[in-house]
Order: sequence, then structure tokens, then C-alpha cells
Amino acid sequence: MYNLSISYNVALNDSGQQCQIEGERSWCVHRSRFDRLEEKLRQNQIDHALFTSQSNLRYFAGHTAGIESGPAPYSPVVGVLFVERGARPHLFLSGSDPAPEVYEEIAIERFPGYSYERPLQALFDLSERLVTLLKKLPRGRVGVESETCPAALLDELRGECPHLQFAEMAPLAAGIRMTKDAEEIQILRECCALCDAGQEVARSLARPGITELDLFEEVRKAMEVKEGRRLPLPADLVSGPRTAGIGGSPSLRRIEPGDPIIIDLTPRHRGYWGDSCNTCVAGAPTADQRRIFIGVEEALSEAIAHIRPGMRACELDTMVRKRMSELGGLFPHHSGHGIGVTRHEDPRIVPYNALPLQPGMVIAIEPGVYFKNAWGLRLESVVLVTAYGAEVLSQFRHVI
Amino acid sequence: MYNLSISYNVALNDSGQQCQIEGERSWCVHRSRFDRLEEKLRQNQIDHALFTSQSNLRYFAGHTAGIESGPAPYSPVVGVLFVERGARPHLFLSGSDPAPEVYEEIAIERFPGYSYERPLQALFDLSERLVTLLKKLPRGRVGVESETCPAALLDELRGECPHLQFAEMAPLAAGIRMTKDAEEIQILRECCALCDAGQEVARSLARPGITELDLFEEVRKAMEVKEGRRLPLPADLVSGPRTAGIGGSPSLRRIEPGDPIIIDLTPRHRGYWGDSCNTCVAGAPTADQRRIFIGVEEALSEAIAHIRPGMRACELDTMVRKRMSELGGLFPHHSGHGIGVTRHEDPRIVPYNALPLQPGMVIAIEPGVYFKNAWGLRLESVVLVTAYGAEVLSQFRHVI
Repeated sequence: MYNLSISYNVALNDSGQQCQIEGERSWCVHRSRFDRLEEKLRQNQIDHALFTSQSNLRYFAGHTAGIESGPAPYSPVVGVLFVERGARPHLFLSGSDPAPEVYEEIAIERFPGYSYERPLQALFDLSERLVTLLKKLPRGRVGVESETCPAALLDELRGECPHLQFAEMAPLAAGIRMTKDAEEIQILRECCALCDAGQEVARSLARPGITELDLFEEVRKAMEVKEGRRLPLPADLVSGPRTAGIGGSPSLRRIEPGDPIIIDLTPRHRGYWGDSCNTCVAGAPTADQRRIFIGVEEALSEAIAHIRPGMRACELDTMVRKRMSELGGLFPHHSGHGIGVTRHEDPRIVPYNALPLQPGMVIAIEPGVYFKNAWGLRLESVVLVTAYGAEVLSQFRHVI
Repeated sequence: MYNLSISYNVALNDSGQQCQIEGERSWCVHRSRFDRLEEKLRQNQIDHALFTSQSNLRYFAGHTAGIESGPAPYSPVVGVLFVERGARPHLFLSGSDPAPEVYEEIAIERFPGYSYERPLQALFDLSERLVTLLKKLPRGRVGVESETCPAALLDELRGECPHLQFAEMAPLAAGIRMTKDAEEIQILRECCALCDAGQEVARSLARPGITELDLFEEVRKAMEVKEGRRLPLPADLVSGPRTAGIGGSPSLRRIEPGDPIIIDLTPRHRGYWGDSCNTCVAGAPTADQRRIFIGVEEALSEAIAHIRPGMRACELDTMVRKRMSELGGLFPHHSGHGIGVTRHEDPRIVPYNALPLQPGMVIAIEPGVYFKNAWGLRLESVVLVTAYGAEVLSQFRHVI
């Protein structure tokens, strides 16, 4: 049993009533995540959990790592979260930067990052601290995420802690994260609102004469000003014949009259991702463009209208895929995907996925049609699966 | 001995003359990197090399991974480069995206990335291919980068290939990369030219009334339009009292008359990083601001003028650090750092680094002074160490 409250400065009571008290709210909110983790670990005979992925550091500890510089130049991991049975979770972070967003129930321990005063040895410094903690544990099994755990770190822990076994647990965490709690849904609403703002600007400025890149610059600027800071923002912005290729980064291509323009925006906000896609036409759409737009738009609406808890992901995929094939073009990608602390996760809306949808899942649905060497069109909304159907979190209107 | 030409479609001759022939140039250019690698590996009794870091995939194979979305959502590594003694290097990449920038001498092998038609199992697919290749090798030692190699991958290789030993080699590669070849220097010049363009715009628009974020939007836009595409661009852009804190992302803070503004721009271009810093003042600088600016500018010029091959990195640091202390503020960071396929690498210009500078090193030098709770100023140029001194690659003028 986890009894995470015992080592707190302020002892916490589990009851719902106590959760109303300011300052304890955060813990009660996130506690259910640890409860679900505990249950999954127990089912798999795992005693403790050592997280190394950015996604789980965000989900369980509230820590959002910067990603715009690529892999951290000073440490092989941005941090490690160790969840010990019966104790307060420990987040090991390099350097001394403030981490105000980390949940108050998490103990932060620092290991030296880069300093001009001593050679860089982040992995050594981190593993030294981790080993000190792990050596105190009785014999047991520690869950790890072996695809994001550096080999050097796991080798060190194995060498220093022969009393412990290390077992894969990444799929357990991914399973827990598939349904979102209230706090996550609120953040995902904010992510969608950012997308809405970007799509509005895109639609209003997508005119003949502007380059894809200049259009993108204006869209991102509006989103960043709304956010009040820079945003990680992977995006497709392609026009004209480039739309036949599904996606791509904005180029210096100048948009011509009649060009379709695919704009797919995926900002990261508070460690969660938004997603959205619209396809508009610069100037007046042709009858054919309008027909395809309507077909894809109807497929999207139909899919959303049919979502129910218990519906299998593959059924939703089949429904979308059938409509796309009727439109005569190619549809060489998924019909959708889960979204959360990663921008693409379970439940994937694909032919092979028999998973039943559940209330609390947040999924992007993105039907599209692509005509080889000609053009393509894709529309995307993010929805929350509810007890009765689906609530559309994206507010922007798809308008060709 | 490596005899990398043997398995080529077109047999290559090593002679310099042959290098003039179009199509073989690329190989001859990069061959010296593999020659240096071979020598280092031999010195360390390592037979083959398995690279997993983005930096070495760029350096040895020409592959630049996208970083703006954070860790790859579909694979624990962006790819793996295997350099087998006596054979053509193999780059394992997930998915089917074209990789036109990969050096022509590298054989590309694909492993499935994300597909809507089958469950994602990138690590399995990758290791299966790697194991097939490694099983054919005789007993020997394989160099790995254990800090970027996922534990799951190394575990799999160890389990399937008991005839091989795996040994750390990351420091060897970092050592090789410290001095740049002609192609790298050309790319780093282009990186610096991008910085120049950004600094010009920053200086011309840094006026009272604009927000840090709006200023940044204009700077980045100019750089991206010059590049013709989006740029990874970590940057500090802080104004007024925020400059006392060394750096930070642009905020909605509106710049006031007399505010100092630190603008530190580090774009990634063709897989290499630029770096540059200027500090200007919105409106007329005070006498004190001007005095500090002149002091830091003189320290930077003096440091550059004194660079010689054989000078130790710590001597350069001492020279800068002494001048900074004379200015009366704090200088709580390095005096500079190497730059290349990472934005921060050896040789670090720090007190503990006795490494002699060598021709071909490219280093950023960045003296700065910070007055607690008041303001700060930093200037930075990128220079190439030559046989006789240093050539400044940054062209923009530091102007307060």
C-alpha cells in the first residue's frame, strides 16, 4: 500500500472533504493518478517506479521539460521521478532552475547540471543520488521505462543494487494516462483554445500572394501572444500541390488563387498538446473542392456523433475510412489518436485497435482525402469521450 | 583497417585527385571523420561503432533529426548509425521519409515507424535489423554511446549477441568533433550569418514600447525568411531588470526607455548551431551602461586578439574572468564554449579546462557582467581558431 501522506510536512487526510482545503487540492487531484499506478504495479508484481520519460515526468510530477533545444545538452535525462511504495515521490532534477509547476506533493532533489566550476558529469551525479536512495530499499522489483532510460543509468543501478530487479512498466503508465482527469481536461481545453486562435488567424490571412512561411509566422505569433510566451508548435502548413503529400513545414511557396491550404497546428501548453486541422482555399473554392470538403466535414461530424463509451476504436476508424474511400482519393493514415502529455498516444483510432472507448478519453479525429499529384484536404477536431457521447473541445469552425 | 570503399556501387579511390570528381567529393570530405574515428577506436581496442546520439548521426551520417516536437513520438531513437570495420556504414532510420541530406556513402536501412496498419513496435523492429547485422560479426568489441542508447536496445543486443562486448565510446567522438573540417566551418559561417541577420533586426527594433515577445517574433521571422523555412531557435530575450538574471525566454514585458535588452540567438541550421549575443539599450544609454558595455566589448576583443593555438582554454577563461571582475558585477558562467553539431560542447572555456586550443576549433566567447537586482550585459562572438590566431565568424557589430 502506498501511504504517501506519512512523510509530508502537513499530514493529509484522504477524505474528499479535506480536498476542499486550499493547498491540499493539488495532492488530492493527482492522488488518483498514483492510486491507479499503484494498482497497475501491484498487478504486475512491481514495488516501485522509476520514471525517465518526459511524458510521465509531466503526468506524475507536473514537470514540463523544455524541448526546443533538442536533447538536453547537459544531462542524458531531463530528470528522474522515483515513486517509492509508502513514501513521498522524489523528482531528481539537474541544475537549480526553479520548477514552480512541479506538484507540491513531490520532493525535489537536485543533481548538478552544467557549471563553469567543475566538469560536467550529470549521469554520475544523478546515479549517485539514486543509488543512495535505492540501496535503502529491501529486495524488490523496480519498474523502469527501458526505452527512455539511458543504458548507462540502468547499468549503474543494476551494478550498485543487486538486491533489486528492474522490470518494464512503460505500457502500464500509458494505459493509466489514456483516460484524463478533470485537471487534464481543463488543460486540454486550453490547448484547444490556442488551436482555435491559430486557426482563426490562418483562415483570415490565407489569401493569394502570401507565402506559406509568412502565413505561419502570423499564425504562430497570434498563438504566442495569446499564450504570453513562446510555444513549441509542430505544424503542417502546405499549399497547392503540396497538400497531396498530407503535411510538411511551411516553405517560401507563394499561395496562388484557388490553392488549397492544409493547416495542422499542434501547440504544447502547460505540458499538454493541442491538435487541430483545417483546409481552406485561397479565394473561391471550385465545385470539386467544395464537394470534397463537405464529404470530409460530414464524415468528421458523423464520427463524432457516433462516439459512445464501449464503441471500439477500430469501429470508429472503419466508419471514417469507409466515408473517405467513397470520396475517391487516398486516406493513408489513421482516423485519429489520443492526445495528452504526448501529442500522439493511445487510444489510436486505427484498424487494428479493438480497444473500447471510455469516458475521459480525449481524442483527435482527422479524416482526410488526398488525390495523387493533385491536392489533399484534412479536417481535425479534438473531442472528449463522455458518459453519453462526445464533447467537441475544438471551437473553431472548419470553413473551406 | 577500414576499407570502406569495397562495398560501394562505384569503387572509390582514396587519392586527392579522385576527390575532384563530382559525386565522390562528399565521401572524400567526410572520410577524414571516419579515419579519425577508426584511429580512436583502434587505440581503445574497439572494433565497430554504434551511434545513437543525434549529434553523431549528424556528424558521421549527415542526418539531422527534427527536434521541435520533443522526443520522437514513434521511436525511442531517431536512428542508429552502425560503423562496421571494413564495411559501408549503415544508418537505420524509422519510417519512409526521404533523407536527402544523408551522405551518399552511407547505406540507409529502414525500420517501420508509425503506421495505421500495424501496432507500433519501433524498438523491436530496429533491434531485429541490428541483431541480424551484428550476428554476422566475429567476436569483438562494439562502441556505444551509453547515455543516449536506450537501455532496452542495449539489453536486446547483449542478449542476442553474446559474442560481442559493448564499450563506451562517446568521449572519443566528442574529441574528434572538437576540431572542425572545411565543410563544417562553411556551415558554421552560415549559422553565424543567420545570427547576424537576427541581431540586425533586434537592434533596429529594440525600442521603448515593444514587448520582448513581439521583438522576438520579428527577429525570428527575419531569420526564418532568410533561411526559407522554420528554424529551431533557442534564445534569451530579456529586458530591464530581467537582464540581471542572465537569460530567459521573451515575455509580454513591454520595453521601457533606458532598458538594457539581452538578445542571445542560437539557431540550428543544417544540423549545426549558431550563437550570438548582443545587449542594446532602448533609447539613449546612460554613462554607466556605456562604460560597462565598453568594458565587456574590450574584454571580448582582447580575448579574441590573444587566441593562439596552444593557448589553454583556462588561460582564455582567466583573461576574460579577470576583466569581468574589474567591472564590479557578477560573472557566474563560462567565458565560452565549443559549438558545432551541438550548441554547447568541448572545448569549454572554463577555469578547470587545461586543453590547448587547436586550429579548426570553433568557439563562442561570451563575457558578461550582471549586477544583482539591477541589470546585466553580455556580448558574444563566434570565432574560428586558425594557425595564427582567431578569425571572427560573427559579422554583426556589438552596438549598445
